Amino acid sequence: MTQLPPPKALIDDAVARALAEDLGLAGDITSAACIPASAHSRAVIAARRGGVVCGVDFAVAAFAQLDPRIDVAIRAPDGAAVASGALVLEIEGPTRGILGGERVALNFLCHLSGIATATAALVAAAAGTGARIACTRKTTPGLRAFEKHAVACGGGSSHRFGLFDAVMVKDNHIAACGGDVAAAVRQARAAIGHLIKVEVEIDRLDQLDPAIAAGADVILLDNMSVADLAAAVKQTGGRAILEASGNVTVDSVAAIARTGVDVISSGWITHSAPILDLGLDFVHG
Amino acid sequence: MTQLPPPKALIDDAVARALAEDLGLAGDITSAACIPASAHSRAVIAARRGGVVCGVDFAVAAFAQLDPRIDVAIRAPDGAAVASGALVLEIEGPTRGILGGERVALNFLCHLSGIATATAALVAAAAGTGARIACTRKTTPGLRAFEKHAVACGGGSSHRFGLFDAVMVKDNHIAACGGDVAAAVRQARAAIGHLIKVEVEIDRLDQLDPAIAAGADVILLDNMSVADLAAAVKQTGGRAILEASGNVTVDSVAAIARTGVDVISSGWITHSAPILDLGLDFVHG
Amino acid sequence: MTQLPPPKALIDDAVARALAEDLGLAGDITSAACIPASAHSRAVIAARRGGVVCGVDFAVAAFAQLDPRIDVAIRAPDGAAVASGALVLEIEGPTRGILGGERVALNFLCHLSGIATATAALVAAAAGTGARIACTRKTTPGLRAFEKHAVACGGGSSHRFGLFDAVMVKDNHIAACGGDVAAAVRQARAAIGHLIKVEVEIDRLDQLDPAIAAGADVILLDNMSVADLAAAVKQTGGRAILEASGNVTVDSVAAIARTGVDVISSGWITHSAPILDLGLDFVHG
Amino acid sequence: MTQLPPPKALIDDAVARALAEDLGLAGDITSAACIPASAHSRAVIAARRGGVVCGVDFAVAAFAQLDPRIDVAIRAPDGAAVASGALVLEIEGPTRGILGGERVALNFLCHLSGIATATAALVAAAAGTGARIACTRKTTPGLRAFEKHAVACGGGSSHRFGLFDAVMVKDNHIAACGGDVAAAVRQARAAIGHLIKVEVEIDRLDQLDPAIAAGADVILLDNMSVADLAAAVKQTGGRAILEASGNVTVDSVAAIARTGVDVISSGWITHSAPILDLGLDFVHG
Amino acid sequence: MTQLPPPKALIDDAVARALAEDLGLAGDITSAACIPASAHSRAVIAARRGGVVCGVDFAVAAFAQLDPRIDVAIRAPDGAAVASGALVLEIEGPTRGILGGERVALNFLCHLSGIATATAALVAAAAGTGARIACTRKTTPGLRAFEKHAVACGGGSSHRFGLFDAVMVKDNHIAACGGDVAAAVRQARAAIGHLIKVEVEIDRLDQLDPAIAAGADVILLDNMSVADLAAAVKQTGGRAILEASGNVTVDSVAAIARTGVDVISSGWITHSAPILDLGLDFVHG
Amino acid sequence: MTQLPPPKALIDDAVARALAEDLGLAGDITSAACIPASAHSRAVIAARRGGVVCGVDFAVAAFAQLDPRIDVAIRAPDGAAVASGALVLEIEGPTRGILGGERVALNFLCHLSGIATATAALVAAAAGTGARIACTRKTTPGLRAFEKHAVACGGGSSHRFGLFDAVMVKDNHIAACGGDVAAAVRQARAAIGHLIKVEVEIDRLDQLDPAIAAGADVILLDNMSVADLAAAVKQTGGRAILEASGNVTVDSVAAIARTGVDVISSGWITHSAPILDLGLDFVHG
Repeated sequence: MTQLPPPKALIDDAVARALAEDLGLAGDITSAACIPASAHSRAVIAARRGGVVCGVDFAVAAFAQLDPRIDVAIRAPDGAAVASGALVLEIEGPTRGILGGERVALNFLCHLSGIATATAALVAAAAGTGARIACTRKTTPGLRAFEKHAVACGGGSSHRFGLFDAVMVKDNHIAACGGDVAAAVRQARAAIGHLIKVEVEIDRLDQLDPAIAAGADVILLDNMSVADLAAAVKQTGGRAILEASGNVTVDSVAAIARTGVDVISSGWITHSAPILDLGLDFVHG
Repeated sequence: MTQLPPPKALIDDAVARALAEDLGLAGDITSAACIPASAHSRAVIAARRGGVVCGVDFAVAAFAQLDPRIDVAIRAPDGAAVASGALVLEIEGPTRGILGGERVALNFLCHLSGIATATAALVAAAAGTGARIACTRKTTPGLRAFEKHAVACGGGSSHRFGLFDAVMVKDNHIAACGGDVAAAVRQARAAIGHLIKVEVEIDRLDQLDPAIAAGADVILLDNMSVADLAAAVKQTGGRAILEASGNVTVDSVAAIARTGVDVISSGWITHSAPILDLGLDFVHG
Repeated sequence: MTQLPPPKALIDDAVARALAEDLGLAGDITSAACIPASAHSRAVIAARRGGVVCGVDFAVAAFAQLDPRIDVAIRAPDGAAVASGALVLEIEGPTRGILGGERVALNFLCHLSGIATATAALVAAAAGTGARIACTRKTTPGLRAFEKHAVACGGGSSHRFGLFDAVMVKDNHIAACGGDVAAAVRQARAAIGHLIKVEVEIDRLDQLDPAIAAGADVILLDNMSVADLAAAVKQTGGRAILEASGNVTVDSVAAIARTGVDVISSGWITHSAPILDLGLDFVHG
Repeated sequence: MTQLPPPKALIDDAVARALAEDLGLAGDITSAACIPASAHSRAVIAARRGGVVCGVDFAVAAFAQLDPRIDVAIRAPDGAAVASGALVLEIEGPTRGILGGERVALNFLCHLSGIATATAALVAAAAGTGARIACTRKTTPGLRAFEKHAVACGGGSSHRFGLFDAVMVKDNHIAACGGDVAAAVRQARAAIGHLIKVEVEIDRLDQLDPAIAAGADVILLDNMSVADLAAAVKQTGGRAILEASGNVTVDSVAAIARTGVDVISSGWITHSAPILDLGLDFVHG
Repeated sequence: MTQLPPPKALIDDAVARALAEDLGLAGDITSAACIPASAHSRAVIAARRGGVVCGVDFAVAAFAQLDPRIDVAIRAPDGAAVASGALVLEIEGPTRGILGGERVALNFLCHLSGIATATAALVAAAAGTGARIACTRKTTPGLRAFEKHAVACGGGSSHRFGLFDAVMVKDNHIAACGGDVAAAVRQARAAIGHLIKVEVEIDRLDQLDPAIAAGADVILLDNMSVADLAAAVKQTGGRAILEASGNVTVDSVAAIARTGVDVISSGWITHSAPILDLGLDFVHG
Repeated sequence: MTQLPPPKALIDDAVARALAEDLGLAGDITSAACIPASAHSRAVIAARRGGVVCGVDFAVAAFAQLDPRIDVAIRAPDGAAVASGALVLEIEGPTRGILGGERVALNFLCHLSGIATATAALVAAAAGTGARIACTRKTTPGLRAFEKHAVACGGGSSHRFGLFDAVMVKDNHIAACGGDVAAAVRQARAAIGHLIKVEVEIDRLDQLDPAIAAGADVILLDNMSVADLAAAVKQTGGRAILEASGNVTVDSVAAIARTGVDVISSGWITHSAPILDLGLDFVHG
């Protein structure tokens, strides 16, 4: 999977927004009161538990925006699997800046690493099959690009990014086109550009052949049993990409993957993954 | 607890940002292809599981920004405890707008209701004691104001908002002031305005009296045992507000609360609460 | 073709930016000096030459932003083919607002209608064949979404929107993958999500079969002769979408279209189309 | 003519906006898939046809924003007349960044150089007379400052920038002031600051003397014949600046210029100039 | 003088920024705690001392942005001279919104009315002469457009708005052009557009004729004695506009005005005028 | 007092906004016309009168944003008391950039130094007492963070920053809570977080004890006589912080301070302080 981080301008903007939220208009009043402007420190950010790292560029940006004299060395890059205790970043520079950026840096790192770690768990469970684990549009508002990158870091794959880059025909669209899966797919196909794919969601196996015949590139098999998924794979015979969704957990994913579907999509990895705990410690002496 | 939603301008801005993320520059190409511009629908957003609702203003704003002709009626306001299946919003208007705003509305509602629900679980477990459940600065970047509101909806309380509105003296600040808790508190007190409170973090009971004597308004008791917390309460005798943090779970919170501390703070309710599942269904006939 | 206008927030933002550019910080000083605040007028925007209209939503937004009391009635919507002299908009309201918004409204209308009109000329020339006319990424900076909408209004089709929504493998990518078209396509295919299409640019017919075999969804035939295009169509036999580009003019497009290619792309319609002349006239009596 | 580029902050902002439009939230997925992060290249941007260059600062900014390690050397600065094939920029650095910025850099360069080239054609045709070629407010929305700079690069002159920096009294203003040219000019003059000029548009020679007597600084002679323009020049005798507009083409401009008018304004150079074709080529070996 | 308020978009933006500054991310926590959401009030904003009103559009916008249900009636519009105690605005609506917007509304009104009042004092002192009172670029950062409007409300006139809309040749420019006033004026004149005026600053009477001969539209007589100003007026004989600056106070301005200069410019009215005290009172019963 | 400057991002943003206001879209047309791009100068910014400096970071940012080749050396930092004629900044670099940034740099410096100087006058008058001088929310819209920093530079203290960071119970809140000071304070206390202070405004001494008993942290004694203030101090006996406001001038402040109140707040230092005059001079030879 590609693990290209999002465009730097997006990262810088998100970090600036988060720093503004934490610093307000008055800044870090505790450090201003207690820490001399000339104080200088070394610190590390380390994993408190094992997982997959994501978000180091955000941490780097947070410290750089606060004080460009802070040096940050990356010890575990995005996508690295780390054990509990492993170093992720080494930081050195003015103490006020390190303290001022600590929470913002950690909030990004912990959140994104949590998603990467959850994704990696599903990927590991599906290992040995040909199935990809993909995320959905069920992301935290404002953070979609970053969370999709975290999914990639965990070994997952992307889905359409938003409403704009692929067609997904669901029940309401089908109803609006007269209730006919094939008609809806054909109508969508005719309306869109030649570089856009069409996916259609079905919940019965008898919809599969009409959807493929109408030119669907991808079929979403929603909440089907493992037996039905396997039947769909057999019936399709490679004529379209098959995606399974619904009730995807670390426990269920292997069975789903063994049916032969191409893609398994999960909302949980972006909307409900717990953070990966990382912390910052000052290094003395 | 006050459940005042964040300033409307902040909500409108966050929703606009989320819609931009989902619509891109080309918009909802599926609906454009399949749904006539004149189509009109009714839909509901309902809880798929029981919990505490938060985020209805975001959903209202999402539909209003997409198409001001969409009417939204609130059936369960922010802060309402709902059972599985309960109606939260009723929506009526142009179908394209309802489909275009569905995911953004749900992403806000599910995320914030998840936090409110997690908070409510801790609050319920601490019921009957005088302890408040408070959140921390461990929030999702860019969403702090909204997540703090969600905590209030769940019956929780706020902490300082950021680095700017209260002093929190931690070990690194104490070290920078010569290693003396009392000196650090006094230095902070002298430097700040008369409307700012000073909290100091201690991890040993012998630091308690010097901190209070130096004028700390609030003492953070970090990762102390229940026995030590109870001892701290007794030793303080109401001279300062006591806050406990560390290892706060639904299972542990009652015992902590019974020690008599004033505030129990939890990062989990904002950084790792799973979503509350809500969904949108079209209403036919 | 879908003629969905871009998201309203994008239109409002672009109009606000254009008004700011024209009004500066001091506003319309001529009208302030010469026109009483109470003056009220009626005006029309009409085509000075025949063509296809695009941009009425921008004109509506321009007057609305300046003064919400201005009423605008649309007489020729986006996509309408109009003759010289045809009414496009009727406007009534405070004179200062009409004069203040006139130039911004016309600058959008004339520019976008120019693109729609140029596109329509190519579409008409290719009529009767199955070939679509598509635009490229050679757009005016900051206006891509609007120019792609103008192309749709002229009957044209879109291409990928940007670097993010489809893969386009060109010579430099092929070189970086070892000089082998098939290897580059396979590498791209493996790296991207299941809802992204892969196009590859070739300039020799012997690259066609390897590209298709490697799984390219679309083949860009760059600057090929009409004879080679026809040979490519025959050789492909429907296994991939074929796109022709290079030297596409109103004169050449029919011959290209008759080769049987699926798509003909043109940069000229977005980067060099002259405006369609429209003007605003006050209506007296 | 002054060829000062627009303020750097404006250029940086326009480039950032254009890059965002092209990169979206996912970035250049083709290069991510096919080009190693460590790849390094040299490339040139050269003119495919002769013309006048404008926009090099935008190209420099585009590459710098994507990757500050990219070095760009300017071989033909803004305002330089170049022959077909001439080098404009030499670029060296990470391949991904060069590919990612190529289209944005070229879109600015081609658009602005097209305007500079069109302007230079009119300027050349009017050479030897005292007439300046000036642009108007008929510019591409959002790009006015840049297009006016392009006009300067082509040897042209500016007009008022917007509604805010000069008074332009037209027929509707005259009508609102009672139908009297002189009254309208006097009213404007009284209302505005001492550093603002007043121009008035007339379409009959008998309006000339009253306009001058009322204190107009500049007289716009709209759509007058060459004979009437010459008569106006004679009648004015240097008491005001005379500007001709309407039907200005490369063919007609010399005759207009020879009448002795001071300024000839053209909308065509900003609203309908075709691009100057420039391209980027990788340099191998 | 024209008293056109700045473009509405600028006012809305400045008010939104000021509200954000005052409300932060948590809003008006006092009203949230003490005032029921359903409370409804009437209030007035009145002058605590006599002066000239400016800024009512900002107050209207502040309340509207907080709660569109608040009605505001303007009793004294921008430019009105009011006595102590006079009503300026009547306000009715939800109490929380009135309290939340009170300070922002007053901060704009008091600041801008202070400038209008100070200007009116200079204008009154110069009454009966032909001299205009003009402001300068010595304005509060970010508020220039609004402060220039306040000057107009006080009967004053504007100067150039910024560095972009008029040429002002000062000693450093003259030095850079070889130390010769006339050469500098000619160089500027040749470089700029035909709708831009040229002003030159001189401090000796012998520079006057060369400046006029070189084509200066306006001559700034800096820090000259009243006698020298009178001599300059006589020597100029109407060939250029004369502007006096330096040591302009309510006491000195009449003597300066009687010299016959056209314009007297003052930095004090924008950079040091004290506020006009206005206050908000709730109306009971 | 802490003299920490506001977060750098805020300063950069305010300076960018001010430069945009002054440069518009066309830039410094005088320097473009008269000053060669290669010209290089040295200049100083010096105080024209004695006072306290504030705003050097804004001046540094203004020159850096215009041209990073400009070097600025700080000779008098924020908070320094300077005599008339004292150097504040030494500047060296491209002449165009120095001229282009001069006015913006001075506008910030003069405004903020004026506030610092006014504050220092009150602080000096209250010297020898324990009373702090504090500012209020009566600040210039958009500049609050900077003006509060200027107050700190003058030796003053801050108040709550906005409506969000402390509770201030005034007469309208008391009325809404049933007219009872104590009830209002208790209601506020119960509603807010444990790190927020509660201040209540009283105007009669009999309100003092109930307010303290209800848990008010700070009591605002509004417009009380010196005798009443002294009585309040005695009556309070250190149980709460006492703040005096109303009619605070350089003449009255000493008497107020001697009553023993803890804090004296003044709107005048932020809303009506005259600028401190500073100027820029080029250094020749």
